[in-house]
Amino acid sequence: MQLLLINPNTSAEITDLVLQHARGFAAPQTVIHGMTGRFGARYVATRAAYAVAAHATLDAYAEYDGNADAVILACFGDPGLSGLRELAHQPVLGLAEAGCQAAARLGGRFAIVTGGERWGPMLEEFVASIGLAKQCAGVSTVAPSGAEIASNPDAALTLLTDACNAAIKKHGADVVILGGAGLAGIAPRIASRVRAPLIDPLQVVVREAELLAAAPPPKPSSGSYAPTTPVPTTGLSESLALRMEGRA
Amino acid sequence: MQLLLINPNTSAEITDLVLQHARGFAAPQTVIHGMTGRFGARYVATRAAYAVAAHATLDAYAEYDGNADAVILACFGDPGLSGLRELAHQPVLGLAEAGCQAAARLGGRFAIVTGGERWGPMLEEFVASIGLAKQCAGVSTVAPSGAEIASNPDAALTLLTDACNAAIKKHGADVVILGGAGLAGIAPRIASRVRAPLIDPLQVVVREAELLAAAPPPKPSSGSYAPTTPVPTTGLSESLALRMEGRA
Amino acid sequence: MQLLLINPNTSAEITDLVLQHARGFAAPQTVIHGMTGRFGARYVATRAAYAVAAHATLDAYAEYDGNADAVILACFGDPGLSGLRELAHQPVLGLAEAGCQAAARLGGRFAIVTGGERWGPMLEEFVASIGLAKQCAGVSTVAPSGAEIASNPDAALTLLTDACNAAIKKHGADVVILGGAGLAGIAPRIASRVRAPLIDPLQVVVREAELLAAAPPPKPSSGSYAPTTPVPTTGLSESLALRMEGRA
Amino acid sequence: MQLLLINPNTSAEITDLVLQHARGFAAPQTVIHGMTGRFGARYVATRAAYAVAAHATLDAYAEYDGNADAVILACFGDPGLSGLRELAHQPVLGLAEAGCQAAARLGGRFAIVTGGERWGPMLEEFVASIGLAKQCAGVSTVAPSGAEIASNPDAALTLLTDACNAAIKKHGADVVILGGAGLAGIAPRIASRVRAPLIDPLQVVVREAELLAAAPPPKPSSGSYAPTTPVPTTGLSESLALRMEGRA
Amino acid sequence: MQLLLINPNTSAEITDLVLQHARGFAAPQTVIHGMTGRFGARYVATRAAYAVAAHATLDAYAEYDGNADAVILACFGDPGLSGLRELAHQPVLGLAEAGCQAAARLGGRFAIVTGGERWGPMLEEFVASIGLAKQCAGVSTVAPSGAEIASNPDAALTLLTDACNAAIKKHGADVVILGGAGLAGIAPRIASRVRAPLIDPLQVVVREAELLAAAPPPKPSSGSYAPTTPVPTTGLSESLALRMEGRA
Amino acid sequence: MQLLLINPNTSAEITDLVLQHARGFAAPQTVIHGMTGRFGARYVATRAAYAVAAHATLDAYAEYDGNADAVILACFGDPGLSGLRELAHQPVLGLAEAGCQAAARLGGRFAIVTGGERWGPMLEEFVASIGLAKQCAGVSTVAPSGAEIASNPDAALTLLTDACNAAIKKHGADVVILGGAGLAGIAPRIASRVRAPLIDPLQVVVREAELLAAAPPPKPSSGSYAPTTPVPTTGLSESLALRMEGRA
Repeated sequence: MQLLLINPNTSAEITDLVLQHARGFAAPQTVIHGMTGRFGARYVATRAAYAVAAHATLDAYAEYDGNADAVILACFGDPGLSGLRELAHQPVLGLAEAGCQAAARLGGRFAIVTGGERWGPMLEEFVASIGLAKQCAGVSTVAPSGAEIASNPDAALTLLTDACNAAIKKHGADVVILGGAGLAGIAPRIASRVRAPLIDPLQVVVREAELLAAAPPPKPSSGSYAPTTPVPTTGLSESLALRMEGRA
Repeated sequence: MQLLLINPNTSAEITDLVLQHARGFAAPQTVIHGMTGRFGARYVATRAAYAVAAHATLDAYAEYDGNADAVILACFGDPGLSGLRELAHQPVLGLAEAGCQAAARLGGRFAIVTGGERWGPMLEEFVASIGLAKQCAGVSTVAPSGAEIASNPDAALTLLTDACNAAIKKHGADVVILGGAGLAGIAPRIASRVRAPLIDPLQVVVREAELLAAAPPPKPSSGSYAPTTPVPTTGLSESLALRMEGRA
Repeated sequence: MQLLLINPNTSAEITDLVLQHARGFAAPQTVIHGMTGRFGARYVATRAAYAVAAHATLDAYAEYDGNADAVILACFGDPGLSGLRELAHQPVLGLAEAGCQAAARLGGRFAIVTGGERWGPMLEEFVASIGLAKQCAGVSTVAPSGAEIASNPDAALTLLTDACNAAIKKHGADVVILGGAGLAGIAPRIASRVRAPLIDPLQVVVREAELLAAAPPPKPSSGSYAPTTPVPTTGLSESLALRMEGRA
Repeated sequence: MQLLLINPNTSAEITDLVLQHARGFAAPQTVIHGMTGRFGARYVATRAAYAVAAHATLDAYAEYDGNADAVILACFGDPGLSGLRELAHQPVLGLAEAGCQAAARLGGRFAIVTGGERWGPMLEEFVASIGLAKQCAGVSTVAPSGAEIASNPDAALTLLTDACNAAIKKHGADVVILGGAGLAGIAPRIASRVRAPLIDPLQVVVREAELLAAAPPPKPSSGSYAPTTPVPTTGLSESLALRMEGRA
Repeated sequence: MQLLLINPNTSAEITDLVLQHARGFAAPQTVIHGMTGRFGARYVATRAAYAVAAHATLDAYAEYDGNADAVILACFGDPGLSGLRELAHQPVLGLAEAGCQAAARLGGRFAIVTGGERWGPMLEEFVASIGLAKQCAGVSTVAPSGAEIASNPDAALTLLTDACNAAIKKHGADVVILGGAGLAGIAPRIASRVRAPLIDPLQVVVREAELLAAAPPPKPSSGSYAPTTPVPTTGLSESLALRMEGRA
Repeated sequence: MQLLLINPNTSAEITDLVLQHARGFAAPQTVIHGMTGRFGARYVATRAAYAVAAHATLDAYAEYDGNADAVILACFGDPGLSGLRELAHQPVLGLAEAGCQAAARLGGRFAIVTGGERWGPMLEEFVASIGLAKQCAGVSTVAPSGAEIASNPDAALTLLTDACNAAIKKHGADVVILGGAGLAGIAPRIASRVRAPLIDPLQVVVREAELLAAAPPPKPSSGSYAPTTPVPTTGLSESLALRMEGRA
C-alpha cells in the first residue's frame, strides 16, 4: 500500500517531521511518499498563505509521479481539500477534517489547540464548513506558530499542555485536538497530562488513509467531485496543466 | 485485538450475518465477539423498538464478560450510543455515525438508503443530532425491512440498486450510504451498479474500530462522558446493575 | 377525565411526590394515575440511566391497565417521548418539552435550572432536539441530584433560589424553568424570590394534559407517529410485547 | 376568570365570529372580552397591513378598560406580539405561536394551511422567528382570504379539506394547523376528513389562556419584557400614550 | 436625483439632525427630502415603540407627496422595512440592514454599539432576521438613549469611543457599527480613536440609496414584494388608505 | 478615484469584456484598472480551478503597481476574497458577495443563475459561507460556461432569460442574480423579460467600490484582517513575496 502525503507548507523540514511521525503510525508494509509545496509560505498561518497553499497542494499532487492508493493533505486547516478531491483519482483525506471527525466520534464537544493566533477564526470557519460547528466547543491558539514549535518542540511541551487544559476548562470541551503539521509528534508526549482524551490528527489521518487505500471507493462519475471536462489553462506547471486539461 | 460487536436487534441470525461480514472486513488477527440484544424487537424499525434497543445495547454490553479493545454498535441508527459511550471504558463506534462521517469525508453530500420506511424521519433526526444535517442530501427507504431483506438478500439486490440510483438523482447526492444491519453483505454486491461511491458502513465501522482499538484514547476523567458517580438502580440485570452502580 | 402520569425514575417516593403536586395543579374532577418505572435508575441523572428510562417509560405505559385520556411523561428530559408518542393511542406530553415551550411563550430566552450536573449537556441536546436551542439562554445545574433534593427539599431552597438568580444574570435569561421530578413542589416556594418569571413545568404539563384530554387529537393514521405494523419481539414484558406486536 | 381577545383585523364581524367560537372552547365561568382593531386592514393579508396591525393591537389593548387575567392576540401571524408582551402586565398569547407549539407537541413536523397566498412567506418568516423552522414542514395557502372564507364558510369546506390533505402529502407533514381568524369554526367541521391530526389554534389559545390566567406568571422585573422607562410620545390615542408614557 | 428619508421617530429635531448629516454624505446634485413619523415614540427604544414606528413609517411614506427615486428608512432597527418594501414602488433601504451588510462586506464579524439598553435583544433578533447572525459578534449598548445622545453629543463622545473599543475586545469583533439615528454625526468624530474600522450606517445607506436611485430595479410583479391586491381598510390616514386600497 | 479590478480568469478577453461594462457603470471620473490572472484556468468553473484562482488573485494584486482606492474581485464566486482582504491595504469587494447582498437588500429570497453546471454546489457553499443560505432560494446553472457565453452572447440571451424565469418559478425566488464574469453585459439586455428584479452584480460591485473608495475604512489594526506579521515564503512572484514577507 502506498500513500501520498502532501505538505503544502514549503518547508522540507516540516515534511520530514510529519513523514517521520506518520510512518510511525502506519502499518509496516505501508509506504508513505512525501511531497512539499513548491511555492508559498514556509508555514501557513495567514489567510493569504492559506489561499496560496491550496494551489500548492494541487501542484504538489500533479508533480508527484509515483503511485498512491490514497492521499493525505497534511496541513491542519486542509487548504485545497475540495479542489484536490475533484482533481485526484484517489480518495483524499485532510488532517483537520479527519481529526475533527475523530473527535466528534468520541462523543461530546471538542476543542482545537494549535500554534499561531491567526488560525483561530480561520479554523472556526473551517469547522463550520464541514458541518461540525456545534460539535466544536472552541479554538484556542498559542502565540508561537507551528513552525516555531517544530524548531524546538521541547520548549513548547508545557505551553501546549497548559493550553489544552485551559481549553478544556474554558470551552467545556470533552475532547481536545492538537492541530498543526509543525506539532507532529507532540500529542503522544503530552497526552497523559491533558485532562481529556487528546486527538492526534496525524495518527488519525494516517490510519484512515490506510483504510481507504485498502478499499478505495470509486471516483464518482457524476456530481460535484466527478472528473471535470477539460479546463484550458495557462501559466501552470506542466504537470498540473496536464491534469486540469485532461491530458494526464 | 478484540472487538465487541453489539447487535441490539434481538435476532441471533442478524448477529451471525453481521459478524460474518464484519470478520471479512477485519484484519486476520482481529477477533470479533458478538452479543445479541436480549429483549426488544427482532428487528428495530420503529421509534418504540429504537427506545427499547438503547437499553438492550447497554444490557448486552454489561452481559459480555470477555475482553474488548473497542465496541461496535451494529444497528444503523445507533440506539444507545451516547449512553454506551458514558458507560463503557472502551471507545464505542456506531454503525450509522461512522458511515455518515465516512460519506462526508468523501466530499459533497450523501444520501442514505435503507429498508423500512419508518426509518426515514428517524434517520433524519439522527443525522441532525450528529451535526451532519447539511451534509445529508436525503434519506430514501424501501418497503421491506432490513429483517426481510436479510432473509432473502438476492431478491432485494435490484430493488436496492434502483433505490440507490434513484436517491442519487432525487437528492442530488454525491455519495450513497447503504444502511441497515440486515443489509450486511449487500453493498459489495451492488456497488458497481450504483452511479456514485457506495459506502458500506459495516466495512467502515470495523476498520475504524480496529484503529481505535490499536491506540485507544483514555476514558475521559471529566465532562459528559466521564465515569459517573454510582447510580442506585432496580430491576436491571445483575450485570448492568453492577456497572451502573459502580460495583463492576 | 383521567390522566396517566409515568415516572420512569424507579422510586415510588418520587412518583408519590410528583403525583401529590400534580393533583394540586389539576382540576377537581381530574383523576391522575401514577406509574413508576419498574427497572432502571432510582433517579435518572446519567446518559445510561436515561437510555434505560426510555424503555421503562414504554414498559410502564404498557403495564397500566386503566383508562387514560392523556399521558404525562414526568421526568424532566423526557426519556422515551417519541417512542411513547408512536406507541400510545392517547396524546403524550413531556415534562421538559411542555416546560420549555411554556417558557418560550412568555417571550425572550429561558434558562433551565436543575439538580445533577450531568444533566447540563444532556438538556442542551434535548432542547436542540425540540427546536428551541436559540430560545434557551443556558442550562445551570446544582450539585445535588433531584433525588437528594427530594429527600430534603427545605435544605435546597436557598441553593436553588440562588442558582435561579445566578442563571438569570449569567445567561441573560428572561425566564427560568425549574426542572426535575425530584424538585416537584419547590417552584411555588421560591418563585417570589427569583428575579424573573419562574416556570414550574409540572404545573404546565398537568394543565396542558387536561386540555389535550378534553379534546384529544386523533391518533395519526400516517406519518412518523401513526400505528406501526406489528413488530415481533422477545424478552419484553407481556404487556409491552402485546402492544408492540399489535396484539393489544 | 376574564380574558381579553384582541382582533387587530378591523372587522367587527370577524371579532364576533372569533369570540363566538372562542367562547365555545372556554370553560363556563370564563368571560372573554373582545376588542377590534380601530385602524388598518379589514383583514390582514399583506406585509403593510401586518405592520399596521401591530400598532392596532397595542392600541386595542390600551383602549380596553376592563379587567383581564390574560390576553389573546387573535390574528394568525401574531402582529404586535412582542410589543404587547412588553407593554401588557398580563401574560399574552398569540394565535399562531400557540398553534405552532401545540402542533410541535404532537411530535413530528407540522404544515400550516391558511387563506390568502401572501401569507405564505410571511408565515415562514414568523415560524422561523419563534424557533420552529425545522418543525414546520411547509405552509400552503388557498386563494380566498380569511375574510372571504368567513363570509361564506360553507363554500370553503371542501377547498380547505383538500388543501389540508394536499399539504400532508406535499410537505410530508405529521400534523396540520388550520390558521386564520376568519377560519374560526371550520377546523372542527373538517377534522374528520383530514388525514392527520388537525390543530385548531383558536381552541388551543383559548385553553392556554385559561391556564395562564389561572396562575399568571409575574410581570418580569428585568430583561427584554420588563416594564420600560416612560417613553415620550406624540400622536397616539390618549390611552396608548398613557401606557407608553408610564402614566397608566 | 431625489431621495426620501423617513424618520419614524416622532422628533423633528432628530429628522433635522439625520438630514443634515445625510446631505453631507450625498452627492451635490442629490436632493434628500425628510419625513418625520406623525405618531409614536419621540425616540424608538422599546418593543412597543418599535411596533408603532412600523406603522408610522408606512404613514409617513404615504403622506409624502413629492418624487423619490429611492427611500431610506432612517431608524437603526428598520421598523416597517418589509411592509414598506411591499408598499413602495421605489427601492427601500434600511439604516440597520445597510450598515450590517456593509460591515459584513469588510470581512470577519461585526459588533453593534448603540444607545438605549433595550435595543440589545431587539437588534440581535433583527440581525438574525436578515440572516447575519453568525456575522454578528455581539451587540453592546450604552445607557443613554439615542435621543439623549442627540441632545448633547459632545458629552457622549468618550462614552461611545470606550464602548466601541470595549465591544471589539469583548466580542472579538473585526468591525464596529455605530447605530442609531440620534447618533448621526458621531461616527466620523470618533472613528480615529476606535481600534477597528467603524461603520457609519448613515453614510452607507445614503450612498447605497444613490446607487439604487440611479438604476432602480423594477417593482416585482410577482412574489412576496409585488403590489398586492387592494386591501379594504378603516381608520387610516387618507393617504395611507389610498395606497393600501390601491386607489393611489 | 481609481479602482483595481482583478479578473482571476486567465483570459484577457474576459478582462476586457468586464472592464468595458464596468466602466459603463462607473462615474465619469472613475478610472478602473484591470489585471488578469497570470496562471490558472482560462475560465474558472471547477473546484481545482477555483483553488488556483485564489492564488492568482493575490498574485495579480501584488503585480499591480499603480494606485487603487478600492479593489474589485471580478469572478462570480470570489476566489481568494478573504486572503485578499487580509493582504490588501484597500477595501476589497467580491462580485458574488456584493451581488448576493444587493439581492438580499431588495427583500425576500434570491435565485442565482449562471453558466457552467459545476458552479451549482460551489455557489451554494459560497452563499452559506457569507451567511446568506436562508436568503438564497436556489442556484440554477445552464450548460454553457461563462467563457462560452462570452464568446457569443447573442446566442445565449434566450437561454438565460428562460433560465431566469424558470428559476423564479422553481425556487420561488423574489429576485434573480445573473452571475458570471463572462456574462458581463447580458443582464441589461434581458432584464425586461425576466419576471422579477434582475441583479447585475457587476453594476452593483462597481458602484459599491466607488462608495468605498470615496470614504475608505481604515485597514484594521487587530483581528482577522489586520496586517500579519511577515511570512517567509518561497517560489512566489517577487511582488507577492514582497507583500507577504512584509517588505512591500
